[in-house]
Amino acid sequence: MFDFKNSKTKAEALSMLLEKCLFNKRIEIIPISEAIYRIPAQNIYSCNTLPVHRVSMMDGIAVSSSFFKDGMPETSNWAAGKEYTRADTGDDFDDRYDAIIAIENVSFDERGKLKFKENLIVKEGVCVKKRGSTIKEGDCVLKAGIPIRPSDLAALAIGGITDIPVIKKPVVAFIPTGSELIAAGTTPQRGQNVDSNSIMAKHMILEMGAKPLCYSIVKDNPENIGITLEKALKEADIIIINGGSSKGGEDFTIKVLENKGEVLLHGVTAGPGRPMSLAIIEGKPVINLPGPALAAYYGLDWCIRGIVNQYLDLPMIKRQRVSAVLAEDMFCPKSISFLCKINVEKRSDGTYMATPVPFKASSIGMCLGTNGQFISEIGEGDYKKGDAIEIELLCSKEFINCYKHSL
Amino acid sequence: MFDFKNSKTKAEALSMLLEKCLFNKRIEIIPISEAIYRIPAQNIYSCNTLPVHRVSMMDGIAVSSSFFKDGMPETSNWAAGKEYTRADTGDDFDDRYDAIIAIENVSFDERGKLKFKENLIVKEGVCVKKRGSTIKEGDCVLKAGIPIRPSDLAALAIGGITDIPVIKKPVVAFIPTGSELIAAGTTPQRGQNVDSNSIMAKHMILEMGAKPLCYSIVKDNPENIGITLEKALKEADIIIINGGSSKGGEDFTIKVLENKGEVLLHGVTAGPGRPMSLAIIEGKPVINLPGPALAAYYGLDWCIRGIVNQYLDLPMIKRQRVSAVLAEDMFCPKSISFLCKINVEKRSDGTYMATPVPFKASSIGMCLGTNGQFISEIGEGDYKKGDAIEIELLCSKEFINCYKHSL
Repeated sequence: MFDFKNSKTKAEALSMLLEKCLFNKRIEIIPISEAIYRIPAQNIYSCNTLPVHRVSMMDGIAVSSSFFKDGMPETSNWAAGKEYTRADTGDDFDDRYDAIIAIENVSFDERGKLKFKENLIVKEGVCVKKRGSTIKEGDCVLKAGIPIRPSDLAALAIGGITDIPVIKKPVVAFIPTGSELIAAGTTPQRGQNVDSNSIMAKHMILEMGAKPLCYSIVKDNPENIGITLEKALKEADIIIINGGSSKGGEDFTIKVLENKGEVLLHGVTAGPGRPMSLAIIEGKPVINLPGPALAAYYGLDWCIRGIVNQYLDLPMIKRQRVSAVLAEDMFCPKSISFLCKINVEKRSDGTYMATPVPFKASSIGMCLGTNGQFISEIGEGDYKKGDAIEIELLCSKEFINCYKHSL
Repeated sequence: MFDFKNSKTKAEALSMLLEKCLFNKRIEIIPISEAIYRIPAQNIYSCNTLPVHRVSMMDGIAVSSSFFKDGMPETSNWAAGKEYTRADTGDDFDDRYDAIIAIENVSFDERGKLKFKENLIVKEGVCVKKRGSTIKEGDCVLKAGIPIRPSDLAALAIGGITDIPVIKKPVVAFIPTGSELIAAGTTPQRGQNVDSNSIMAKHMILEMGAKPLCYSIVKDNPENIGITLEKALKEADIIIINGGSSKGGEDFTIKVLENKGEVLLHGVTAGPGRPMSLAIIEGKPVINLPGPALAAYYGLDWCIRGIVNQYLDLPMIKRQRVSAVLAEDMFCPKSISFLCKINVEKRSDGTYMATPVPFKASSIGMCLGTNGQFISEIGEGDYKKGDAIEIELLCSKEFINCYKHSL
């Protein structure tokens, strides 16, 4: 039976769970073409030295500085390929030459004969990019532990790196349960409900940098849940059982978890989604996430993201925030950390206004579609119209007013 | 020849180009399983009404309120399936019943006979979620013009939406040119350089929400460049020719562009990458992006992103910024908007320190790998150690100090 009194906070719940997890972290070698946003397992150093020899720093001609040691030379008999050669930005040139003269300082007469501007100073190495001045073998081209960006892929390519070791993504199993559930895209009949959490969970898990493994809907009976859980324990690192988390007559999940491993807690002081339970089975975290869409969203956001971050050794990234004034009173139960869905609007004076979208009184599309959210602190309780609160944005700031007239 | 004097600013260049583009914007219908981050072409409304009939709001039993109209009934003869039935959260129940009593208020004696807590108030509709209280047919589940998030996919699924119209991604062709270039992964010989821009461009274009189409390396000759450009004009909406943008002897690109369409400008007051040129051919923007990695990066970031955003009708998203104090003097040519690569460090007092990574004096891996950048305003010129500047972050704030000891 779900235990309201001994519920843990989000932080307590996560730390209880993470303390007992035996993560099987692995490293895999992947080609750089697949490496975007992956987490490098070690610093990576260049194999290449570039330029390999030397190149021109600009569009121009290559000459030998020895001709210029007593001032500007007589060039009426100079010929391309002999006394000089064309050498544009990035071009290597013959070892006879050791300096570059910019094309702006060169002209050719009607017979094609070269002339210089007066008083050029031409010394060995002028406008020449030396060997290794772009990159040297051994230069660091990528730092461990930080998600790989497009420009990092360029650095890896320049460094001659073809494959790199990255932290293997944890596989996160998502098991939707409920005899009333039908797959998205099917028309619901009386008594049926649509599985909308699988598609959301899949993409939230991808955003976390993990690999989702979504199972088909499992009917509410302990045998079926047990069989799918066994499968998931073989295939995944983190397991989510969605639904059947409360104390309904068909909520067998907690019993299945107790049979197979250690249930650490049943009930958190965070809602919607209080009757969440956390277990460890074969060293792996198994989370029974409540079924309602907002409860599942919230649990994925704080709990599953927290576990995946720990697996990947990533810091918890905070969303962009704006300070906004409440347009209406906002209900927040005092005893829990409550997820309030909020629509933020930027006013003409540049300040932000926050309109709560209470989930019990609103269409679910409206709730899921807000551009912001507020997570209350335990003990705070309700807020009043006019109060200033910090909103977590669920879109880039620039999109805020695009949501204004919607939903 | 590249025209320094008549160079345009980034804003001027973009607006000249966008004014002349004839974008062939199209809408395509895609399944919601493919719709993450896509831009909906119209508001989407629910086809479903949920609950279809009605469901219990909590774990409990369903009863008929008529038994309670004169106070608490005698229940010693009640039987499951007759006077009451089990109805847990989300369960529909038979039409004989019209109210739910929470399981906390019910107990069963040793013979399985049901007992209520005293003085319950049981009226028609108590704890019953009515038809349509989750969502009604016609409720908005998605707003046009805003990238689709995981929670939006849940709303679409609940609304019974299987396919949605989205703006077709513009195809962005990327053509690397240069006889000195070799494909990434090949060992460079004297005179050769590695094509590192293709992999960077591909992933920057993906991040913009467009579809990259990367061609093989094209040698520096007008025929080859012309043939590939013709191909790209058939296959892409936006075309990038990378390299050969200056006035080197092998820089044919500008001539090819002039032959095929209208060159709008050659030269922008933004660097690295000043000798960029912009053309319109068959109504499509063709951008000749300079070859060096940082020049290509900068041009992709301001110019190509600007064009793609216009195509997709998206606002220009600003990166997260921090104010930081310069740890060293920073060179910034006064006449252009200069990209300064910066490593930001968060100090123990919570303030940020900015160390410039000057591209002419640094390994390219170091330049490409910074966690921040600064884009100077034209006319500003150099900055001094101790100056406070606004840094654009190239990583989440939480990662800033992960870059500290690196590269």
